[in-house]
Amino acid sequence: MQKTINYTLFGKKLIYIGFLLIGLQSIAQTKAKPNVIIIYTDDQGSVDLGCYGASDIYSPNIDQLAKQGTRFTQAYVAAPVCAPSRAALLTGKYPQKAGVHGNTSHVMGSDGMPGEQYTIAELFKNNNYKTAHIGKWHLGMSKKTGPNAQGFDYSFGHLRGCIDNYSHYFYWAGPNTHDLYENGKEVFYEGKYFPDLASDKALKFVEDHKEHPFFMYYAINMPHYPYQPTKKWREYYKDVEKPRGDYAAFISTIDERIGFLMDKLDALGIREETIIIYQSDNGYSTETRAFGGGGNSGPYRGGKSSLFEGGIRLPTIISWKNTLPKNRVNNEFLMNVDWLPTLANLCELKNIPKDIDGLDLSQMIKNSNSALPRKEAFWKYGNQWAVRKGNWKLIGYPKDTSHKGKLDATEDALFLSNLSEDVSEMKNLAHKYPQKVKELTAAFLQWEFGYEDDVPKKVEIIEHLGKSKKIKSIKELHKKYKNIDVLLDGKRGYKDFRSGQWVGQEGADLAFVIDLKKTQPITTIHLGYLQDPTNWIYPPINFEVSFSKDGTNFNKTTVSNSAIKTTKKGSLTGKLSIATRQKARFVKIHINGFGKIPKNYEGEGNNGWFFVDEIIVE
Amino acid sequence: MQKTINYTLFGKKLIYIGFLLIGLQSIAQTKAKPNVIIIYTDDQGSVDLGCYGASDIYSPNIDQLAKQGTRFTQAYVAAPVCAPSRAALLTGKYPQKAGVHGNTSHVMGSDGMPGEQYTIAELFKNNNYKTAHIGKWHLGMSKKTGPNAQGFDYSFGHLRGCIDNYSHYFYWAGPNTHDLYENGKEVFYEGKYFPDLASDKALKFVEDHKEHPFFMYYAINMPHYPYQPTKKWREYYKDVEKPRGDYAAFISTIDERIGFLMDKLDALGIREETIIIYQSDNGYSTETRAFGGGGNSGPYRGGKSSLFEGGIRLPTIISWKNTLPKNRVNNEFLMNVDWLPTLANLCELKNIPKDIDGLDLSQMIKNSNSALPRKEAFWKYGNQWAVRKGNWKLIGYPKDTSHKGKLDATEDALFLSNLSEDVSEMKNLAHKYPQKVKELTAAFLQWEFGYEDDVPKKVEIIEHLGKSKKIKSIKELHKKYKNIDVLLDGKRGYKDFRSGQWVGQEGADLAFVIDLKKTQPITTIHLGYLQDPTNWIYPPINFEVSFSKDGTNFNKTTVSNSAIKTTKKGSLTGKLSIATRQKARFVKIHINGFGKIPKNYEGEGNNGWFFVDEIIVE
Repeated sequence: MQKTINYTLFGKKLIYIGFLLIGLQSIAQTKAKPNVIIIYTDDQGSVDLGCYGASDIYSPNIDQLAKQGTRFTQAYVAAPVCAPSRAALLTGKYPQKAGVHGNTSHVMGSDGMPGEQYTIAELFKNNNYKTAHIGKWHLGMSKKTGPNAQGFDYSFGHLRGCIDNYSHYFYWAGPNTHDLYENGKEVFYEGKYFPDLASDKALKFVEDHKEHPFFMYYAINMPHYPYQPTKKWREYYKDVEKPRGDYAAFISTIDERIGFLMDKLDALGIREETIIIYQSDNGYSTETRAFGGGGNSGPYRGGKSSLFEGGIRLPTIISWKNTLPKNRVNNEFLMNVDWLPTLANLCELKNIPKDIDGLDLSQMIKNSNSALPRKEAFWKYGNQWAVRKGNWKLIGYPKDTSHKGKLDATEDALFLSNLSEDVSEMKNLAHKYPQKVKELTAAFLQWEFGYEDDVPKKVEIIEHLGKSKKIKSIKELHKKYKNIDVLLDGKRGYKDFRSGQWVGQEGADLAFVIDLKKTQPITTIHLGYLQDPTNWIYPPINFEVSFSKDGTNFNKTTVSNSAIKTTKKGSLTGKLSIATRQKARFVKIHINGFGKIPKNYEGEGNNGWFFVDEIIVE
Repeated sequence: MQKTINYTLFGKKLIYIGFLLIGLQSIAQTKAKPNVIIIYTDDQGSVDLGCYGASDIYSPNIDQLAKQGTRFTQAYVAAPVCAPSRAALLTGKYPQKAGVHGNTSHVMGSDGMPGEQYTIAELFKNNNYKTAHIGKWHLGMSKKTGPNAQGFDYSFGHLRGCIDNYSHYFYWAGPNTHDLYENGKEVFYEGKYFPDLASDKALKFVEDHKEHPFFMYYAINMPHYPYQPTKKWREYYKDVEKPRGDYAAFISTIDERIGFLMDKLDALGIREETIIIYQSDNGYSTETRAFGGGGNSGPYRGGKSSLFEGGIRLPTIISWKNTLPKNRVNNEFLMNVDWLPTLANLCELKNIPKDIDGLDLSQMIKNSNSALPRKEAFWKYGNQWAVRKGNWKLIGYPKDTSHKGKLDATEDALFLSNLSEDVSEMKNLAHKYPQKVKELTAAFLQWEFGYEDDVPKKVEIIEHLGKSKKIKSIKELHKKYKNIDVLLDGKRGYKDFRSGQWVGQEGADLAFVIDLKKTQPITTIHLGYLQDPTNWIYPPINFEVSFSKDGTNFNKTTVSNSAIKTTKKGSLTGKLSIATRQKARFVKIHINGFGKIPKNYEGEGNNGWFFVDEIIVE
């Protein structure tokens, strides 16, 4: 009797389960492919998670994600700042190829990443996925470069680089502007905490599409300034010194919301049908708006804006529960451009674009014994560039925003490291391994965006009448550029105004008197200059010289040629010259600064800079 | 029987009323004096209220307040920007005397209005009032210049000039900083709308002190940017073009909260025991952060930062229901410094400070037939200054931030109006009434802060060899200062770099060639310059001249004297000179700019400006 009842019960259960199975089957038919969620955080430092060794940060949900998948120790992004890093992620291409060299404009209507770029969202959409962008965009303020035009069926978030998390106003530049959009339409949620709004929208998207494969780009706008963690986490870290305390609290604020998402996937029963990637867009910020810091690049040198590891080697996790391996640490070398082909292959998508820089890592991720496809990578941001080949890494004109050590601009203009021995990039091996430098430089020059002119040249000593003679400034020098001895050290400077080899001036002129120690015939004066329009550096208009035997009575001035027409040619070094026939001991040289930058030149309307290195007296 | 019952009921009621009366009597004993509330709004334009004629603004509560009291049509503030206007209100003194010349610093710990200033809050506190500051402070970031040190028992609000209304972060400069304090202690109310928080705190203060006389300075931070009206009002104005729509919605947001306060006073039964003043701190803003406008100065010229009426003549109401007259419009002339003595007299306070600039208007306010005590007023802000005497008003170096008309810098350097005939100050009567100009100028010079050097001088024509001759620039001019004919027009410029009489340069140098049309003897070259350190304008370092007969071959350069040592003397005009003995037709002049501003000079570290007017060739 009891058995009968039990059977009856089982019978009922079976019928119920039968219905469920039919339901699941119909889901399964639509949902032949796994969902994909890319979580992309903002200005998160290289080791700012519990699972990356941060003992002062509480991040249980992200740590759990790492346990349910693979955590990478050598995952890079293709740029050390926001917009180009995102462009690379979304296109699978180097940001240069994606048309995004630096951060994009905040002006409403301005273009960002060109609309014709084919994004990962378009790829998934064309493979019958529902696609969503949640959070920060920062890749264009025009309709044709907005999220909906770039393959996202749904979009919710801010279009500019950062917002106040409660009012959703953009304060970085221009008028105080509200910046919150849903599918291109301005929406108001005043007072609502943006990380929660974004979380709610993400959870809703996931729930709405639980029966259809979806791709969600969840661009979390934290821990980017303004540091606005929730009260709960601010209080949790109240004894941690600021700004670290607020920053850490902001990471825990992220982590809690990752927890909300994981709980939702679990509750919907689709956790195992969902591939999740977690990555930061660039290293931690040391900007004033971020109180000069708060994040941590751990053993690495550099932070945001730097091509040392701390700017580009960042927390990265992939998890596909019960399909991909769990609890693994992968020490192989990969880059955010690889996600597009890797995910495309994991999801068995059709029509994967060919003209990309990303490599398919799916076999390596499935099986750690398979060969690593990525052997090298390249970066270029401003005048910095870098090549990594195997464990060797060469940086041109390195910049250390973390201020962990000194860089000699001349000696370290090319900075070589063997990452397997010195992951901190504190010791420059360029002089010890000139062949390796040559090899990596050659690789850089072979790269689509590497130019001969980017490479710091060996300094040849120029012998001339003025070399190591006395030079005196007769006009006020720029406070940052007072080392005028470099003008007579017999060396031309590297194509890097920060190298210490240059004397710069903003807006104003410079003027010097050189004492050659004895009266002698002079036939030519050359003035070396730097041109670097991206940094608003243009050639001086010209220079004037006059000569004297006694240092008091100078004869009439002669004016040099001008180089202003070269300014459209980009970054270069050059020289201006004056031919003369003099017998003199003293040379007075007046360098006419570039003045205001004219229309249609980079930096239009601002004071132009000029930089000069050697004054060559022959 | 029924009567008995009724009596019984009445008896009960009477007993109850009896208790009430005892209660009221005890309140009345403590509350011998009326409460005072000063509502001070932020960047509200001259006519931006329904009761001031704004047909597109809905402000029923403030309009009602005006009906329950007196609305002023000629009430001024003592400065056209925030901090000095507030300093004047709180001290009853001209801001110069209160030690606040311009806006105060946002840097934590920096001093604002000196702590030794005796404020209206201290006066009321010393007369046994409970005092409160609610809202914006902007008069000091140090403990000794904060609200609690300036006489306020209670303080709630932001210390800097503006905040985001939801996060309470200050974004104007420096790091992205939270800025909300209660009695000097940082407090967090993230996501809570600041106008509501401030309103709640104001209502609570009023309720807590209903039985004790109180003074409340309610410094509402609206309609100052960021324009963040509530949803209700944003939608109400949704068809009004921006930024006017957002601005108007922000005014209605203020108005609604004034309604909350009035309702509270009514509910507590203390409306008739409370004197209420309503005023704006300065005219509407035309800054970029405010989208260039949104407010309205109606018939008046100017806005924030201008000494035309639109910058300083603002909505002003006083109401003391059932004690002062109601539904009155007062057209007499008064200033915010008058509130201290006026309120002190209305409240019969003891020990009213004597060393103030405010006048007691209490008789005039009580009785419109009484004589107006204020006959004149003075303003000084930057290089602008103004005098009003009766209906005559004279402005020195006027600035029209509302851009309602042209100002000829020379002709209008002294701008005279008769406000009874031309309240718009569009027609300068200075040339028609020179005696009036003289009289008002004399009054200005008698004023404690008026100096001879502030007064634009009559332009004397200087006859010299170069006058009206040909001048050519041989270096790039500053884009704002290209009218180089003023250098040979025979006129020295006014002490006002904006006057159009000057050729300015920032950071860089200037150089010209003058063609005297024929070869002639030359003995002296003078170069007129302006010095105005507040605006980072310093004398040029020096100038160099060389001469030529043919315009091609110039002889050796001679260098002028230098004026750099005068820079500590404040604002002045001067000239540099070179004595020579030449026969020449062409004069080449190279003016060496001030370059970077050195340490301990105003504008330290920035590019210095220089301004030159006449090149006098003798």
